[in-house]
Formats: sequence, structure tokens, C-alpha cells
Amino acid sequence: MQVVDFNSDMGEGFGPWTIGDGVDNELMTHISSANIATGFHAGDPGTMRRTVARAKALGVAVGAHPGFRDLVGFGRRHINATAQELVDDILYQLGALREIARAQGVSLQHVKPHGALYMHLARDEEAARLLVQNLQAVEPALLLYCMPGSAICRIAQQLGQPVIREFYADREYDASGSIVFTRHVRALQPAAVAERVVRACQQGIVRTVEGQDLAIAFDSICLHSDTPGALDLVEATREALRVAGIEVRAPR
Amino acid sequence: MQVVDFNSDMGEGFGPWTIGDGVDNELMTHISSANIATGFHAGDPGTMRRTVARAKALGVAVGAHPGFRDLVGFGRRHINATAQELVDDILYQLGALREIARAQGVSLQHVKPHGALYMHLARDEEAARLLVQNLQAVEPALLLYCMPGSAICRIAQQLGQPVIREFYADREYDASGSIVFTRHVRALQPAAVAERVVRACQQGIVRTVEGQDLAIAFDSICLHSDTPGALDLVEATREALRVAGIEVRAPR
Amino acid sequence: MQVVDFNSDMGEGFGPWTIGDGVDNELMTHISSANIATGFHAGDPGTMRRTVARAKALGVAVGAHPGFRDLVGFGRRHINATAQELVDDILYQLGALREIARAQGVSLQHVKPHGALYMHLARDEEAARLLVQNLQAVEPALLLYCMPGSAICRIAQQLGQPVIREFYADREYDASGSIVFTRHVRALQPAAVAERVVRACQQGIVRTVEGQDLAIAFDSICLHSDTPGALDLVEATREALRVAGIEVRAPR
Amino acid sequence: MQVVDFNSDMGEGFGPWTIGDGVDNELMTHISSANIATGFHAGDPGTMRRTVARAKALGVAVGAHPGFRDLVGFGRRHINATAQELVDDILYQLGALREIARAQGVSLQHVKPHGALYMHLARDEEAARLLVQNLQAVEPALLLYCMPGSAICRIAQQLGQPVIREFYADREYDASGSIVFTRHVRALQPAAVAERVVRACQQGIVRTVEGQDLAIAFDSICLHSDTPGALDLVEATREALRVAGIEVRAPR
Repeated sequence: MQVVDFNSDMGEGFGPWTIGDGVDNELMTHISSANIATGFHAGDPGTMRRTVARAKALGVAVGAHPGFRDLVGFGRRHINATAQELVDDILYQLGALREIARAQGVSLQHVKPHGALYMHLARDEEAARLLVQNLQAVEPALLLYCMPGSAICRIAQQLGQPVIREFYADREYDASGSIVFTRHVRALQPAAVAERVVRACQQGIVRTVEGQDLAIAFDSICLHSDTPGALDLVEATREALRVAGIEVRAPR
Repeated sequence: MQVVDFNSDMGEGFGPWTIGDGVDNELMTHISSANIATGFHAGDPGTMRRTVARAKALGVAVGAHPGFRDLVGFGRRHINATAQELVDDILYQLGALREIARAQGVSLQHVKPHGALYMHLARDEEAARLLVQNLQAVEPALLLYCMPGSAICRIAQQLGQPVIREFYADREYDASGSIVFTRHVRALQPAAVAERVVRACQQGIVRTVEGQDLAIAFDSICLHSDTPGALDLVEATREALRVAGIEVRAPR
Repeated sequence: MQVVDFNSDMGEGFGPWTIGDGVDNELMTHISSANIATGFHAGDPGTMRRTVARAKALGVAVGAHPGFRDLVGFGRRHINATAQELVDDILYQLGALREIARAQGVSLQHVKPHGALYMHLARDEEAARLLVQNLQAVEPALLLYCMPGSAICRIAQQLGQPVIREFYADREYDASGSIVFTRHVRALQPAAVAERVVRACQQGIVRTVEGQDLAIAFDSICLHSDTPGALDLVEATREALRVAGIEVRAPR
Repeated sequence: MQVVDFNSDMGEGFGPWTIGDGVDNELMTHISSANIATGFHAGDPGTMRRTVARAKALGVAVGAHPGFRDLVGFGRRHINATAQELVDDILYQLGALREIARAQGVSLQHVKPHGALYMHLARDEEAARLLVQNLQAVEPALLLYCMPGSAICRIAQQLGQPVIREFYADREYDASGSIVFTRHVRALQPAAVAERVVRACQQGIVRTVEGQDLAIAFDSICLHSDTPGALDLVEATREALRVAGIEVRAPR
């Protein structure tokens, strides 16, 4: 792999609050694609505008990062909503960011659901299908970021919505290829994360929590801005990619 | 006047709740332009989708009806927000409805701020100018519904954003041409409202609360769906317009 | 059974909206205990104040009706929250109503969780136990309304929190004694509901959806204010109870 | 003055977010009274519980810190609500904290409105009177923190609600004795703040923005946890008070 995308969640503050020690501004200089929170789990219209402006100034591609309607739970708690409710919520958020970006002359590159909604769409075929059908209606070329092998990934490929498969630099994998999601992420070593990413890029392999190697295919590296020490992790990873001769570039 | 637009606020429920005795479905058959609530003072993504679908089925033109972020106060309480905050909020809501409409193949005809936000933009030049500048950036042909003579009306005309001036069928005017807004609207007589509207259309005149005739120019009749007896008022008005040979048609 | 409590959910509007065709004021004249919505699934401080005042004027006992933090979903959608989060949310809502009632010289009689939260506590022992432990700390005499045989009912009885077991006049039972919850309730016949309630009071028996008789023990009849035709159902039931010589009275 | 109270706003995070660089835990060791955010401008039930626990562990007195219902604006934007709406909102929030504190065996010492609501009650006699009347009904001994000379201060003294008058360590005064509120507070020098506080305690004098000395009477020093460098300011001030022989102690 000579070229890879690097995405991170951006703009996940709300009103007076910021997330991830306020490292967004700095982190933005190291990524190629920004997933911008759209108001339901985080993000408010003003934060969205400023985050789009920052991405535009740095040439970072912009995508919508819609979540469950659960501000206090940061979109990390599953809500037993119907497929139609979820798709309505996602379109609402997608359009909100699209308009704010349009006011700055910026087009959306992608959409990536957040947290528990991301996991829900990885499993729930009905919701995944309804979402992809709606994306086909509103913008068939909008990139959909997802987990390789997930329900939504398969359905998007079937229906013709282009996907970007992610590799999670700061999450553990198990033998099934699933990521081990937790509410609280433990501290990670920058060198270890960087080495893991480069290995995944060069060899297509990741070490699982069970201690075995797992083949993995992906188009984008994801590192979460609220992972403790995110900035150090991203800087170490970017430097390791540079040394390895791998260019970081947005898919579009 | 041979042709006039007839607009009403639609979809002003939220979750399990509806407004105006749930007359939206019926009211929609009598209007030409629907101002659809966009989530901040009323309206949720599901209600927005259903309201767009109803408008589409009936050939009613669709516009965004953004309000102050004040669900419990139904957008009727002024919030001391900055111009930038308000414009960010309006773009967010405008885009949300635009996307939900796009998923049904429906384009937005217009935008009309709600309640206290409508009144704020009628007076506050800074906010009005910033909004119009942003509308110029996102869609210079989007119609802006406003009060004749208001700050936002003048600024839109200066900057080239097309306006639709409103006549309020269910609000009193004073000698200055301002409408007398109240939190609670008293019951109105259908025949009196209908006669008042026809007179305004034919002669360009309205009787003020002080009892004098006032010249008034407008492009659209507005009647609020939460005015008590709204359905009766609209039906009587539509019938009177029919008898007077005045066609009701959306501007676009 | 010579005496029975009759409870209903009250004050389930929000801001400009009311629920159940606005029948609260009338319905309140027929019940002995009011479960007042406390702001998370429905209810706002002003509605809470007015609902307490109405209950006080009619001599109806007042209880808190806390729900999941999900206004748009009316507390009917399960949220995957921790036991601690749920108990924090319940105490918050309980105290909010308690203070508003105190300002009118009214003491709370009971607490009854709403919708999906009610069902969650009927099953989840950890959350149920933590809630009862906290009720023991704040008010060991506060009545806890619950489903007979549920986890929270058993745990409250173990720990000494007094319970009021409910019979659902407008819900179906299955052979296991569980109620068959649905998002949308079908129309019911007043005479059939009234007969069913009187039979349950006199014989301790209810007919299940499978068509068999099931023994049932309870202290309070529950009829939901948002059940279609709620007012007719309650009036018919109250009249049938009167004829049967069964007095309706709050437990305290 | 030999003894003075020292209060600060605590628990002004929400969900995943914290305010003031997360210095609450440390700041709490230096104050005698904590104003705990109650959910409308900041604060959620879990944060409230943890903040009460921290205050209890350190022997810090606890009060409610209710704000306008404006999370995204952090309660800093005036909302044109009626007196009754504001009092309903305040009682709701007051009770919420009271219950959460009661579960830990902690009684409330005081109430102090937040931000724009604090300023509103300093000016609006109708709202101030209605609030004090309600406090008299729910707890006539609850301390009310307020600005000396404000409407609410005078009315509370008239009606018999005990007041604690504040001196703002991190705000400028003008010649009228009013504080100069701003959305964004500039950085302050710890030594200058400490000296200013000690002077106010010892001599009852503060230098205004116009450069003149103003007599000031107060019972409590307030320093905001979201003032940049709050922890340094508080530590310097506490040390200066110690050197000056002035004890910091909660009023109750």
C-alpha cells in the first residue's frame, strides 16, 4: 500500500465544551479526512462551522459524523430505535453539515456514523439497507466509511454506494475481525500504535487480542481524537508512515 | 391581484405530540406553500419526513421553518444570541430539511424563520445581513419569506435574495404596519378573516387595531396552523378567494 | 376487594404540546393517584406545576413518573444505560417533582417509572436493586408502583420499600403474567374494559391473550391517559366499580 | 473581617465534557461552598452525584446552581421567559440536586442562580419576588447567594430569606457597583487577584474599572472555575487570606 487515508473524529465538543483536551486544531494538521460531529451526540452549529473552516484551510476532506440522539451519553449507548427513525436522524444530521459546509464552498466527501450507531449499522441489516437506499437517493457518490465485513459494508457494496473500509489504530481486534469496543479506552504507546499501523499497511496483518495474526484489508486508518494521548499517537503514526514511504491522502 | 400564495406552518409537532389539534393533514390540502418546522422549536426528523411527503403528494411547495433553539418555549421566547450563532442555527436547520426533502426528490422553495426569530430578523440588521449573505452563498434563488418593510426584507432586496412578502390573515396590524404578536391568540371569526384577506388582496388595504385603513403590499397570505380554529379559517378564506376569482398558487 | 387505587399518567405534555387529546383535566377527576411526568420523556416544569395543582385541588395523590431521557421517543425506546446512570436520572426527576410539589404544600405519595424504563426495571436486577437502595436512602416510605412478580417488585419487598402492584386495564396479559407492550395501542371497548377490571377486582382473575384465566393480585388499577378513548374507558370503569360497590381510594 | 466564605461553580461539565480544564477536583479542596450545576446550562445527574460526593468528602457545603435552559449557550444568553417559567425551572433544578444530595445524606446549604439568570434576577423584580416567595414556601432557611444591592438581594431581605452577598474575585466592578460581565474573561494575575480579595476583606474596598475605590460589603468570595487559570488564582488567594489571618468557612 503506497497511499492511505487517515481519518479522525473532529468537532466533538458542544457549546462551551471541547473533547480530547482540545487537540482538534493540532490533530487536524495530521489527517486527510475529518468526521465532523453533527449535533446529536456532539457538535453544535457553531462548532461545525469552525471545524469545517479549519479542515478547509488545511485541505482536509470533510464528512458527516452522525450519532444517536444522546448528548449526555455521547452516542455511546444503544437506543432501541426503528430503522426509519435512525435513517431520518442520519439524513437530518447529514444535511445540517452539508449546508454549513456549502456556505463555505466545501462539499462533503463522506459520511461515517458514530459510536453505538456505527456498531448498530454494522449488525442491523434492515437499518443498514434503509440507510444505503437513502444515500443512493440523496448522493450515490458519497463515500460511506465502515468496518470491513460489516452488514452496512456488504449492503453498500451490493447497492453501489462506494465504501471506505477502516482500520482502527487505537482499537483491539479479536480473532473474528471484530473490534473490541469499550466505553473507556486505556492509554496506548505511540511507538506500538505506529508500528501496528505500518504493519497493517505494508503486510495487511494485525495482531489480535488472542495473540494471533489476522489478515485485514482497508482504505483508511482511523484514530479517535478522544483516545488519551491522541495527538502523540497520530504524530508518531504519521512519522512512521513517512519513513515507510506511505503517503496519506484523502480518497477523493 | 389575480394570484396569491397561501402559506402555513406545518409539522410543528415533536415526537409523540402534534400541534393545532392535528389538523396539519387537512390544512395541507388548502395551502400552496408549507413552512416545515426543522427541529429547534418544533419538528423532528420523522415528522419532517412525513410532512414533506404529505406536501409532495398534494403538490404543495416546501420551505424550511427554522426557529430559536427552544423546544419548551416553542421558539416564541427571544434568546440573546449573536448574529453568528443564529445564522449557524438557521443553516443547520435549513440543511436538515433540504436533505430530508432531497431523499424524496423534493427541492426547497423557501425559508421562513419562526416566531421570535422571525421578529428578531425583522429588527436586527446585523443578523439579517449575515443571514442573507449566507443564503447568497448557499442558494441565491431560495425565496425568503418576510414581513414587508422589515430589516431582513430590505437587506434581502439590496443583496439580491428574492423575497416573498407576507400578509398575516390571523394577526392584527397597528398603524405602523407592524403586526401585534401575542403568545396567545384569541379566537377569530372565519367570515371576518376571509373578508379581511380578500379585501387585502383586492384593494391592498387592512384595517388596523386603531381602526384606520393601512395600505399593504404582499405576495403571500399566512395563516398559522396553531391559531384556534385554523382549519375553519383557512377553509372560509379559500372559499372567499375562489368566489373573488383569486387563484392560490405557490410563487415557484 | 372493597377498595382499590386507580392511577393514570398525567402531565405528559411538553411546552406547547399536550398528550391524549388534552383529557388530563377531565381524567384527573376520576383517578385517585396521578403519575406526573418529570421532564425526561415528557413534562416540563410549568406543566408539572399545573398538574400538581390540579391533583391537589381534586384530592388526588401525586407521584413521580420518571422516564428514559428520550423526549422525541417519549421514553418508549430502551437506552442501554448503566444502572448508575438510570438511578441518577430517576433521583434527579424525583427530586424535581418533589420540590415543585413542596412549593404547593404537596407531599409525594409514590414513584412509578415510565414506559421502557418501567419494563427495564422489571427485568434488570442490578438497576432495580440500586434504585431501591437509593429510595431507601431518600425516603423509605415512598410507595413504588410496579408490576407484580417483576424484579423490582421482589427486590423492593426484600429491602422493605413498600410496593403498589398494578393491574393494567388497557393492556393485554399473556400466560406468563407479563403484559404485552406495544408502541401503538388499539382501540378498546369501554364496557369490555370495565367488566375486565371489575372481574379482576372481585375474582382476582384476568383473561390472557391465549384465552385462559390467570390469577392476578394487585393494589392499583392503571389506565394510560394516552390510550385512545382513555376518558371513556375510565368513566365506564369508574361507573362499573361504583355499581360493584368497590371504592376507589389512594393507598395513602 | 476574620471569616469569609469562598464559593465556586462546580460540576459544570455535561456527559463526556468537563469545564475549566477539569480542575474541579483540585479546586474543591480550596473552597468552602460549592455551587453545583443542575442540568439546564450544565451538569447532568451523574456529574451532580460525583460532585456532591467530592464536596461531602472534603466538608464543602453544597448549593444548587440553576441556570437558563440553554445548554449550548452555557446559560450565558438571556431568554425572554416569564417570571413563572423561570421560577418553575429553578424549583425543578433545585429539587433535582436536593434529591441527589439527600441520597448521600447531604443537605443543601444554598442556591445561587447562574450566569444570565443571575443577572436577570438582579434586575427583574417580578421574577425575583416570585422566586423568593417560592423559596419561602419550600425552605425559608435556604441561603440565597446574590449580588449586594441587586433586586433579588433586597427582596430576599424584605421577605426574610437569608442572603449571602458575593464579592467577585475575577470580575471587574464599575463605579455603580455593578460587575462588568463578559462572555470571555481575560487572563488574570494570581498575585493581583489575591491582593484585591484581601483588600476587599480587610478594608471593604475594591478598585473599579474607572480607577476609583468603591466601598463593598459581602459575605462570600466568588471565583469562577471556568476563569482561565482558576486553580492558580484560587491557590494564590487562599494563601494570601491565610497570611492575612482570614479564615475561610462556609456560612452554615
